[in-house]
Amino acid sequence: MSKNIIIINGPNLNLLGKREPHIYGSLTFETYFEELKAIFPDVTLHYFQSNHEGAIIDKIHEVGYGETEFAGIVINAGAYTHTSVAIADALSAVKIPAVEVHISNIHTREAFRHHSYLTRVCKGMITGLGVKGYEFGVRYFL
Amino acid sequence: MSKNIIIINGPNLNLLGKREPHIYGSLTFETYFEELKAIFPDVTLHYFQSNHEGAIIDKIHEVGYGETEFAGIVINAGAYTHTSVAIADALSAVKIPAVEVHISNIHTREAFRHHSYLTRVCKGMITGLGVKGYEFGVRYFL
Amino acid sequence: MSKNIIIINGPNLNLLGKREPHIYGSLTFETYFEELKAIFPDVTLHYFQSNHEGAIIDKIHEVGYGETEFAGIVINAGAYTHTSVAIADALSAVKIPAVEVHISNIHTREAFRHHSYLTRVCKGMITGLGVKGYEFGVRYFL
Amino acid sequence: MSKNIIIINGPNLNLLGKREPHIYGSLTFETYFEELKAIFPDVTLHYFQSNHEGAIIDKIHEVGYGETEFAGIVINAGAYTHTSVAIADALSAVKIPAVEVHISNIHTREAFRHHSYLTRVCKGMITGLGVKGYEFGVRYFL
Amino acid sequence: MSKNIIIINGPNLNLLGKREPHIYGSLTFETYFEELKAIFPDVTLHYFQSNHEGAIIDKIHEVGYGETEFAGIVINAGAYTHTSVAIADALSAVKIPAVEVHISNIHTREAFRHHSYLTRVCKGMITGLGVKGYEFGVRYFL
Amino acid sequence: MSKNIIIINGPNLNLLGKREPHIYGSLTFETYFEELKAIFPDVTLHYFQSNHEGAIIDKIHEVGYGETEFAGIVINAGAYTHTSVAIADALSAVKIPAVEVHISNIHTREAFRHHSYLTRVCKGMITGLGVKGYEFGVRYFL
Amino acid sequence: MSKNIIIINGPNLNLLGKREPHIYGSLTFETYFEELKAIFPDVTLHYFQSNHEGAIIDKIHEVGYGETEFAGIVINAGAYTHTSVAIADALSAVKIPAVEVHISNIHTREAFRHHSYLTRVCKGMITGLGVKGYEFGVRYFL
Amino acid sequence: MSKNIIIINGPNLNLLGKREPHIYGSLTFETYFEELKAIFPDVTLHYFQSNHEGAIIDKIHEVGYGETEFAGIVINAGAYTHTSVAIADALSAVKIPAVEVHISNIHTREAFRHHSYLTRVCKGMITGLGVKGYEFGVRYFL
Amino acid sequence: MSKNIIIINGPNLNLLGKREPHIYGSLTFETYFEELKAIFPDVTLHYFQSNHEGAIIDKIHEVGYGETEFAGIVINAGAYTHTSVAIADALSAVKIPAVEVHISNIHTREAFRHHSYLTRVCKGMITGLGVKGYEFGVRYFL
Amino acid sequence: MSKNIIIINGPNLNLLGKREPHIYGSLTFETYFEELKAIFPDVTLHYFQSNHEGAIIDKIHEVGYGETEFAGIVINAGAYTHTSVAIADALSAVKIPAVEVHISNIHTREAFRHHSYLTRVCKGMITGLGVKGYEFGVRYFL
Amino acid sequence: MSKNIIIINGPNLNLLGKREPHIYGSLTFETYFEELKAIFPDVTLHYFQSNHEGAIIDKIHEVGYGETEFAGIVINAGAYTHTSVAIADALSAVKIPAVEVHISNIHTREAFRHHSYLTRVCKGMITGLGVKGYEFGVRYFL
Amino acid sequence: MSKNIIIINGPNLNLLGKREPHIYGSLTFETYFEELKAIFPDVTLHYFQSNHEGAIIDKIHEVGYGETEFAGIVINAGAYTHTSVAIADALSAVKIPAVEVHISNIHTREAFRHHSYLTRVCKGMITGLGVKGYEFGVRYFL
Repeated sequence: MSKNIIIINGPNLNLLGKREPHIYGSLTFETYFEELKAIFPDVTLHYFQSNHEGAIIDKIHEVGYGETEFAGIVINAGAYTHTSVAIADALSAVKIPAVEVHISNIHTREAFRHHSYLTRVCKGMITGLGVKGYEFGVRYFL
Repeated sequence: MSKNIIIINGPNLNLLGKREPHIYGSLTFETYFEELKAIFPDVTLHYFQSNHEGAIIDKIHEVGYGETEFAGIVINAGAYTHTSVAIADALSAVKIPAVEVHISNIHTREAFRHHSYLTRVCKGMITGLGVKGYEFGVRYFL
Repeated sequence: MSKNIIIINGPNLNLLGKREPHIYGSLTFETYFEELKAIFPDVTLHYFQSNHEGAIIDKIHEVGYGETEFAGIVINAGAYTHTSVAIADALSAVKIPAVEVHISNIHTREAFRHHSYLTRVCKGMITGLGVKGYEFGVRYFL
Repeated sequence: MSKNIIIINGPNLNLLGKREPHIYGSLTFETYFEELKAIFPDVTLHYFQSNHEGAIIDKIHEVGYGETEFAGIVINAGAYTHTSVAIADALSAVKIPAVEVHISNIHTREAFRHHSYLTRVCKGMITGLGVKGYEFGVRYFL
Repeated sequence: MSKNIIIINGPNLNLLGKREPHIYGSLTFETYFEELKAIFPDVTLHYFQSNHEGAIIDKIHEVGYGETEFAGIVINAGAYTHTSVAIADALSAVKIPAVEVHISNIHTREAFRHHSYLTRVCKGMITGLGVKGYEFGVRYFL
Repeated sequence: MSKNIIIINGPNLNLLGKREPHIYGSLTFETYFEELKAIFPDVTLHYFQSNHEGAIIDKIHEVGYGETEFAGIVINAGAYTHTSVAIADALSAVKIPAVEVHISNIHTREAFRHHSYLTRVCKGMITGLGVKGYEFGVRYFL
Repeated sequence: MSKNIIIINGPNLNLLGKREPHIYGSLTFETYFEELKAIFPDVTLHYFQSNHEGAIIDKIHEVGYGETEFAGIVINAGAYTHTSVAIADALSAVKIPAVEVHISNIHTREAFRHHSYLTRVCKGMITGLGVKGYEFGVRYFL
Repeated sequence: MSKNIIIINGPNLNLLGKREPHIYGSLTFETYFEELKAIFPDVTLHYFQSNHEGAIIDKIHEVGYGETEFAGIVINAGAYTHTSVAIADALSAVKIPAVEVHISNIHTREAFRHHSYLTRVCKGMITGLGVKGYEFGVRYFL
Repeated sequence: MSKNIIIINGPNLNLLGKREPHIYGSLTFETYFEELKAIFPDVTLHYFQSNHEGAIIDKIHEVGYGETEFAGIVINAGAYTHTSVAIADALSAVKIPAVEVHISNIHTREAFRHHSYLTRVCKGMITGLGVKGYEFGVRYFL
Repeated sequence: MSKNIIIINGPNLNLLGKREPHIYGSLTFETYFEELKAIFPDVTLHYFQSNHEGAIIDKIHEVGYGETEFAGIVINAGAYTHTSVAIADALSAVKIPAVEVHISNIHTREAFRHHSYLTRVCKGMITGLGVKGYEFGVRYFL
Repeated sequence: MSKNIIIINGPNLNLLGKREPHIYGSLTFETYFEELKAIFPDVTLHYFQSNHEGAIIDKIHEVGYGETEFAGIVINAGAYTHTSVAIADALSAVKIPAVEVHISNIHTREAFRHHSYLTRVCKGMITGLGVKGYEFGVRYFL
Repeated sequence: MSKNIIIINGPNLNLLGKREPHIYGSLTFETYFEELKAIFPDVTLHYFQSNHEGAIIDKIHEVGYGETEFAGIVINAGAYTHTSVAIADALSAVKIPAVEVHISNIHTREAFRHHSYLTRVCKGMITGLGVKGYEFGVRYFL
């Protein structure tokens, strides 16, 4: 039976491909997600995005205590990375291991982006390696 | 006429009894809430839980400006305790007195849990005395 | 064709006129908004208020990538001003210029209100000039 | 056999009832202590107050290693809360559980009163609930 | 009788229009001041500029205790904004209300420009809205 | 009837005249106290010294609530100046005004001596003017 | 021959007696200065006030290297106390001893007033004892 | 022609497999390196380890300015990560892109390990994903 | 004639041997002190313990200015190490050299135990070497 | 045509040669300036000194926008180095390059002298090399 | 069989006896080492000094994993004490217990010498007791 | 006899002329060193560069205690400037005066480059004046 792995994206990541296409390209996350599924044919990949902190917490609870058994969470919490103790608590309250991903290198941006509340409750973090970070995150659970 | 008192629980507190039962026991808050009602037969106890910061604010507004007259709010805002200026502002915007409760001792946990935005606008805080803290919170308003 | 400008109000600002009327007067924002529309007959003014951080982000996305073309955003994010990196990211992700407004002078209040995550991504800030700040914010885009 | 519980009050708390009676009332702690004994007829309540840090340490040692077996310590160390590592060490050196009490809300006073050396070695803290805090502290051990 | 309002500019603001004209344009403050007078025909606008901290204090005293009655001070203290407690004291020593103006957004510049000693003693601040800030400052007093 | 004024000296000040006489001279505080009494023949001067924080608190309580009516306290709390919240609380609990004195200039010594917990609850402070500071302290109450 | 002593007052102190007379009384410093001269008939008292930092430095140089021999400087640098390294350097560059005076207790006001650049180069400081501080400052040099 | 990629390990990483085998296993980096070469048959992998900061800098210079053309550097600078500005300068002085790897999650260890001087000059960082981090680092350059 | 050396122990050290014997063993300091006297037959060893800060200061004064001539003080001030400026001042006020001892390694405990007020006025410190630290302290004076 | 270079000296530097001649010698800056002119016969050296911050700003404006064309500014702003954002702004507002000079080594003096507002807007700084620093400053522009 | 103990000295300690002989005497560490061997005839003492951080790490690895079995390391890492995370990691990677020694009292020197990275991984520290510290370090392992 | 002066360059400075030639030009330090020798025909200039902290320390010891007598050290320690207490200790352990040089202005670069451990033990520093800084450094010793 194939493994279930979920990718959770936080606020503003729904704009990928739309926002500043000369920089980020016109590849939306939805399109990239199809590529990702092609790379891992033996994995059932799930995807969730929300701009609402509470909705992300609800989803993590569902992943941890729902009927489907998940092998891992790949999470890019966007700006909530730096402000949300509640998402970190949700991750530590479920038994599913998680890997944190950031598309850009958060340590070369504004000082308030250098700290992540999530890292402490994740296996590890991948930062600055572009959308490839999601691929490596998935690969870690295999 | 019996007094109305509301208990408001923040993010992840819906997992009590479910999460790590060997530690927290299998007592859910719903079950404990029944015990609490038994302790205070003369009080009309209300209960609200949400993982959404905005929903907690909406509820506080409703308590403060709704039709039912409340004698007090017992609030455990979970992780929002440490990050939500908006919930604190909501509490100070209503005229109902509030008592802050924490099940574990927030001062013996991570440094970022030592500070509460809510304390400043509450009558006081009870921390580290387990679920008994809710009982003492209610008792304060009697 | 008249310009579209939106005013976005954050948490607890729905209580204006209701809360402590001896201080703030009994003028609700809705009433003030009518006055504002009278001042600027040639502008189509929009209004949005929410206590939910995620809903404010959703709205900013809609303003930036929806069908109506907006000339500017006048935003008073209330308490989220001081805690929301995600709203700031939303503002910087859309191409509509924004002006930050605060009714009271945030620099003469508690220390945690002295810092705004939004200022960095706004054209500028008006603070302490009462509801007149909204009028000046709109006027800036004309 | 009834449980032994001791209330330990630190510096300046001997002035309760005497000091600023228009604010604190003319109820001395001695009088309140009588009320407390009436609330808990099945508990042997002890009381100790001193302005001397060393005397408080001596008393804690006596409670922990003396002949009487104590079920709990309810301690309001007054100003020593914020400066005495030695009292905290004494509490951690005895096996009797302790609950920290403050009459006023220490988090709404001067910054140097926000930190307590004692919390780390106590079960928990009750702050800002007036003299009722002592009652709740005793109740915790029952 | 028309209202008297004074605009006070601090150090280096005498170079407006001269300094880096490709950026700031060749509009000197003197020329802009004429435009401003045209916008407010019913106001008697006064103007003062100095590179000397002491001269600005002397002028504020004169405004506050001189023969002409002033309705308001619009002040852009330039670099003294960040270093002069003495100008702030002067403003708080006179009974004339003041509004602080900055042409550029001081919160998006060097860290030492984020703090203003003046804000504390002014009604409010307008920052980042270009020379329009002076206009809004004057309008506030009408 | 002559005024009662008390001078309270804290830890190590009993060694004046004994300790490093080549620096401080061989004048003990007792001898200086006689000179002081001569300067103020119409004042009843009292003197108390202790190395015990608790004893100083006891004494302040006695001054504030005892039978003799005091016009003022001149206090040099020595090293307790920098560490004792409890002595500061004692001073604020009594209605007698106090003036803080330091023989040496505490602002030119080690950094931990720059801050005084007592200043906040005293009328003022005299520092660095040698034993003359006691004389000025007494003179302030006349 | 009588001693020469100079009192130097910094910015905004020229408003004493004029500013908020219901608080400070209508006693101007000039009038108080006459009283002071009466207290010390054997001293030649000089007085200088300026709102200009540079003018205060020029005056200190003149006192230190001019023709008149001065026994001491009593200085209340007002707001420059907290910001002027240059006045401190001027005081340390002349051989005349100085005493720092503040009318109000600078340690009970805003945090930025707790630090004085001048203390380091003065004999000592008198703060919070009202205009009596000037008298004690002069008396120190006798 | 196959790509050249070098893995550079810093101080104490030569002890992998030797040190605390019950925790880290008895797999030495040399053995793991063979596995890695098997995963990437089309890449020429190089390996360098040193406990000497200077030797690591020399090697980076050689990689950047030597005869072999390198496609990327995968660097785990061990403890020098947190202290060596000089290695960071070396990386920024060569034109070869680099990825930073840490076996354990540096953000869940001592505070002084939370900051990396290298991240600023690397494409990104992989931390906490065990030796798999090296594999992902290499994969990034393909 | 044999040298006099005194060991001074601060708060809670009277519980050695009693407190947590499975960790610290059942060796009381009194018993250890007998062993120490056996190691140094030619030294007259004195011993003093108190939980009172003031009593320790009194004792240091007595050692420094009493009739017996002391060659050295070996001091373990317990928790007062981190909070008592007054004990440090007492040590610097006497001419007897002192060595500071800590049984456990204070640098591997809580952050507030990393700083010692006493080190500055002692010859040196021995920390973490168990009760052997006392022996080395005595040996230093021989 | 010879180059114009100006040396600008800030507060208290007019006392060179006069102040503490046993340390600084009796060489006034005026005399040294003659020597400097002899070293650079082909340069037209100008000199300006003031104790007034505003006067230094006025002079920099004059240098930058006056009729004479200047090749460089050698500035020793004395104590204003550490406090004047306004002089730094003046330097950045003119197009003449500047070199900052300090006679003593500002980094080995008080902590508040370690930071210079001017360095950011100067080509570089020479500190601690005595009056030779002025010579090197001039030489830099040749 | 005698115990092997090694003394490791860090940078600049090779200059002992050579550098400032009027202060440190002309006793080189080599000569002192001979004395030390005489004090402990039953111990095989080893000695290593290097100015190279990497060489000290290499030596610690050799001590920990070489053929000779060591009973302890006495280490004075000189200036690397305050900057080398890598040496601390090396010490924690070997199973040999270590004692940290400093000749002078590092807590009475510059602030950057107050912190040691090594203490955390050593049994304890001896500081300020001169070269006797080495003797006590060796004695600890016997 | 000509004076001996040595220039010591730290890590990465061997890449001058090689690294980013469009910025730094293709002038290597070796070539510039020849020019320098031409400027000072009467001085015997020595040159040393290393990427190894320990090697720089060894060289400083050799300069200070070797057979050749040196008049001065001109040192650009590169990145070790900001991290090496050990090189600073080496400089203070030899009797040869040193001048610190930086090619770029370290105060306008990253915050961690603003502090130099070396300045404290050097005569002074020259920063931001390009390679001319070396020339001025040498000239200082003549």
